[in-house]
Amino acid sequence: MNQGSLIVLSGFSGAGKSTVINQVLAQRPEIYFSISFTTRAPREGEVNGVNYHFVTKEEFEARIEKGEFLEYAQYNGNYYGTSMAVLREKMAQGIDVILDIEVQGAALVREKMPESISGFIVPPSFQHLEGRLRGRGTDDEETIQKRLAIARVEAKEVPKYDYIILNDAVENAVAQVFAILDAARCRTQGRMDLLEDFKGE
Amino acid sequence: MNQGSLIVLSGFSGAGKSTVINQVLAQRPEIYFSISFTTRAPREGEVNGVNYHFVTKEEFEARIEKGEFLEYAQYNGNYYGTSMAVLREKMAQGIDVILDIEVQGAALVREKMPESISGFIVPPSFQHLEGRLRGRGTDDEETIQKRLAIARVEAKEVPKYDYIILNDAVENAVAQVFAILDAARCRTQGRMDLLEDFKGE
Repeated sequence: MNQGSLIVLSGFSGAGKSTVINQVLAQRPEIYFSISFTTRAPREGEVNGVNYHFVTKEEFEARIEKGEFLEYAQYNGNYYGTSMAVLREKMAQGIDVILDIEVQGAALVREKMPESISGFIVPPSFQHLEGRLRGRGTDDEETIQKRLAIARVEAKEVPKYDYIILNDAVENAVAQVFAILDAARCRTQGRMDLLEDFKGE
Repeated sequence: MNQGSLIVLSGFSGAGKSTVINQVLAQRPEIYFSISFTTRAPREGEVNGVNYHFVTKEEFEARIEKGEFLEYAQYNGNYYGTSMAVLREKMAQGIDVILDIEVQGAALVREKMPESISGFIVPPSFQHLEGRLRGRGTDDEETIQKRLAIARVEAKEVPKYDYIILNDAVENAVAQVFAILDAARCRTQGRMDLLEDFKGE
């Protein structure tokens, strides 16, 4: 059986990444969504063990020492990290895995697992991003400005990603993610078994 | 506007490549199918200017001398070649182009246009291939054995392709081609314009 693919998804804060990923998972429940560990406080509606494993700084640092993380990073003063074991197990079972991480973590995954694929979710324009951040009404002006400044810095890292996913409408972004995953399943390196039969003589 | 992609499709003789490509083009008439020049005789039902540009050996060699071909090759005693100009024009218009060529030609295209993508269409097994070749009833036993021997040689070249398209059912193979084309449209190198907006300051 073929290995599942690992797709790393990042995006500007406010680009609609969570909505896209939730739709992807709703339409393809067979995909495994890797739940990160984080030390940040849960937002309204977020559930421990569903959105994140919410842990204390002390617990997170203990897990770092145990070498448990494929990647971890600090972002906006909080730790975020991905546990390796479950992810490898799912892929070995032929299951595609989605990792929702920021650019620092994505760079580490790319380095440690070169066979992974990565996609960066962008809004149609900077103005769109600003509009969405204001529109969701969860952040004060200072936070919004901080997020926009981070977006400008993150944009410099996007060329390292394999794909850019344009979120001009959720269903379009979802279709792009599916195409990327479906194409990944056709990659020659993962289908060499189909040639075995032709090797005789 | 983004460039169209060039996808090179090859496959074992009898793997159902023509059927797959015809279905792809029927469902997405916006794709441009590059019509090759060949010196082989038309098969029953083949139309000049639709399936191939059928030309004489003399005419083909004159076109070689004019440097008209992106690639050309001899296969089974006949010339096959792809004219470059139309193909570049279509891609510049944002149109995806399909090139149906054999392994030697595909290697040349990969070299000259590294941004192209390539897929090799395989049947589920060697037995399937043999069955299909006999089933279509167009070839005598000697020709069938020749095709099977060529398949074994071609199989060694398949690892150089980006993708393997498994033709276990035409609709599955068609879906794989669409996923590959749709993913190609998301490639970062072709979408750098989406980042322009985030470069300020």
